[in-house]
Amino acid sequence: MANPELMEKIVSLCKRRGFIFQSSEIYGGLNSCWDYGPLGVELKRNVKNAWWQSVVYERDDMYGQDASILMHPQVWHASGHVEGFSDPLVDCKKCKHRFRQDHLEDSTKCPDCGGELTEARQFNLMFKTFLGPVEDSASIVFLRPETAQGIFVNFLNVATTMRSKIPFGIAQIGKAFRNEITPGNFTFRTREFEQMEIEFFVKPGTDDKWLDYWKEERFHWYVKYGIKQEKLRLRQHAADELAHYAKNCYDVEYEFPFGWSELEGIANRTDFDLSQHAKFSKKNLSYFDEQEKSRYIPYVIEPSAGADRSTLAFLVDAYDEEEERVVLRFHPYLAPIKVAVFPLMRKDGHPEKAREIERMLRPHFHTDYDEAGSIGKRYRRQDEIGTPYCITVDQQTFEDQSVTLRDRDSMEQIRIPISRLLPVLQERLNGIC
Amino acid sequence: MANPELMEKIVSLCKRRGFIFQSSEIYGGLNSCWDYGPLGVELKRNVKNAWWQSVVYERDDMYGQDASILMHPQVWHASGHVEGFSDPLVDCKKCKHRFRQDHLEDSTKCPDCGGELTEARQFNLMFKTFLGPVEDSASIVFLRPETAQGIFVNFLNVATTMRSKIPFGIAQIGKAFRNEITPGNFTFRTREFEQMEIEFFVKPGTDDKWLDYWKEERFHWYVKYGIKQEKLRLRQHAADELAHYAKNCYDVEYEFPFGWSELEGIANRTDFDLSQHAKFSKKNLSYFDEQEKSRYIPYVIEPSAGADRSTLAFLVDAYDEEEERVVLRFHPYLAPIKVAVFPLMRKDGHPEKAREIERMLRPHFHTDYDEAGSIGKRYRRQDEIGTPYCITVDQQTFEDQSVTLRDRDSMEQIRIPISRLLPVLQERLNGIC
Repeated sequence: MANPELMEKIVSLCKRRGFIFQSSEIYGGLNSCWDYGPLGVELKRNVKNAWWQSVVYERDDMYGQDASILMHPQVWHASGHVEGFSDPLVDCKKCKHRFRQDHLEDSTKCPDCGGELTEARQFNLMFKTFLGPVEDSASIVFLRPETAQGIFVNFLNVATTMRSKIPFGIAQIGKAFRNEITPGNFTFRTREFEQMEIEFFVKPGTDDKWLDYWKEERFHWYVKYGIKQEKLRLRQHAADELAHYAKNCYDVEYEFPFGWSELEGIANRTDFDLSQHAKFSKKNLSYFDEQEKSRYIPYVIEPSAGADRSTLAFLVDAYDEEEERVVLRFHPYLAPIKVAVFPLMRKDGHPEKAREIERMLRPHFHTDYDEAGSIGKRYRRQDEIGTPYCITVDQQTFEDQSVTLRDRDSMEQIRIPISRLLPVLQERLNGIC
Repeated sequence: MANPELMEKIVSLCKRRGFIFQSSEIYGGLNSCWDYGPLGVELKRNVKNAWWQSVVYERDDMYGQDASILMHPQVWHASGHVEGFSDPLVDCKKCKHRFRQDHLEDSTKCPDCGGELTEARQFNLMFKTFLGPVEDSASIVFLRPETAQGIFVNFLNVATTMRSKIPFGIAQIGKAFRNEITPGNFTFRTREFEQMEIEFFVKPGTDDKWLDYWKEERFHWYVKYGIKQEKLRLRQHAADELAHYAKNCYDVEYEFPFGWSELEGIANRTDFDLSQHAKFSKKNLSYFDEQEKSRYIPYVIEPSAGADRSTLAFLVDAYDEEEERVVLRFHPYLAPIKVAVFPLMRKDGHPEKAREIERMLRPHFHTDYDEAGSIGKRYRRQDEIGTPYCITVDQQTFEDQSVTLRDRDSMEQIRIPISRLLPVLQERLNGIC
């Protein structure tokens, strides 16, 4: 059930509270480009760190890497992007507007002016630019349309330097670019976006098993970090939906206010990519399996997640309206600010004491200090950005060195000695630095 | 004193051990583009996190943000990059080679063939591409040549949503691109690179004081994370060296094997950028100072660091050769792997016990497990990648549940109960997750 009104509220909250701004807004914005503000950058950092922690640090079969955005153009010939990564476009001969042919209901007439349309031409979605001072075909390079190929071309380097044994994976977070004709839905479909990709190399024949493993593993990652399970589903691709290189694929989908949409695809890419790169580079990209005493080109399971899409899903899913407040119920690990500290009054030493407590907590958690407006208003402001805990200094603080600790979700307040704050918060926000 | 031999050793270690690979290496590489391998990505992540921790989390006057790489083209007209960010190029009329005029010793003859040179033409260093399906001048966008402008255009958004009071700063980490004619020195000067930039907004008249503050603050950050102070210097720009927008500027320089080179520039950019954007966008970018009851365009102090350059400096500075080993003496916070666990022998239950200990430590630290070759060889391998601690399971482990804990720098080994490992390592690697 589409809910554009809810989406509007979230977009508005994102701008008002510093999560997401339109890019170059003072110049009228740049279509489909967005900037993460002070709270958005923390949320997205936390999402990316949660992913890295889970797929790299907590596993003994995964290596990280970070390849450059600009790559040798041959990479995109081998991968098939130069030849095949395109949309069919038609032009109106009368009003000159341009459309994606596969999005037109009636492909013979212009939907804007009724004019005659040209034949469809293939429009490649890769952004291109020129490396070096000469703008000719020899200097064309592309902004990578996916981070995946940066992993495939490093497969040998990683396997050799890490002495890694199959099965193992390589994980990477980075920007990718696609010149989409129809971007939209806020940060969901943009021309510049960030991916969190794994290429997991397995022995042919074990690929079905590993696809099953990874689709479950990745589905549960979203649940672990707080997304409601009933808003998530795994959807298997139909045969006619599969990319040409894929043997099988599942999407993790989330029910956004604009409908069920893909957060992550988990695909069995077979040995397509490594075989192509072996062919185009004339390098031997096969793997010698010492246990099996055999040599083969590994199959690849690819869990490919969108960092911006996940961040948006965590935001949307956390959004909750109650009678008296709006609250973002982030998992504590993802919350941009962990603890806010308030003086009850702007006098009697309250601000100084509150600042002192904030300084004590600041090296351990991302904190905030607020003294503006009524205490109720300050709680509401923190609820709206998803801060799990608020601490208030009041008169009693000066009598017994205690403060109130208020929980975002239950709104309950307990009194706690200042000396206990750090250990109690460390326990409740466990694992968060 | 240039030391190309040392630089070669470091580049070789980087490739051999998985710190840094040439981009698209199987295709012969892409000039001046580099990929961070499994250890390099961790080192660079740690450098960026150390910066973010120090400039965002530990301060109460700084906000983070993350702007998109593609921005509205007007941004680069306002900033002066479209008109002024260029190098003078000359072509040889005979061999067609191209040169930077200001790098030619004798500017009347081709240094390659002695042919006649053309007049110099200005070559803009911004990479350009086309947004949307039509490749015409109206759709040209640039890959940002600096992250700074993404901060200036968001100044109002951040100030408003965060209710921030001057002095305050905005910090950002992100990729930037410059179509350099002469990249080089490994990852030091590349066409694609990552910046860590702060724009710190201050009241005019306090700018000299804040420039002093930030040059000291940033200098000491490098020292804090382990760079030898005698290899660092602050160098003030001469008047004829200053960018047109700068009133004053200091570089933090490091003595690389290829000479003293800039890690970070700390510039007083005055009100140049905000004034330009106010003019071009016709938006009021002034700030109302409630305490002073006056309105002004803030001055800006910009500490602008290179993430790749810093990472390279930390690598080079950590490199040490002893008679029997090469050791990277990283600050523990920066070390890619914090703890390695070894079984003394590949039998008698040693590997299982070592794996068990590694699993216990893994959620808390980035760990490694190694059972290949002699124990001495394994220590050397960890020394060479800078791992601060190694743990070895031996026969005695099964008698008294103790292991040896070996220190990278002193090479001393102590015996320690397994139950004490986690707290002892947490204390020694304090603040590292």
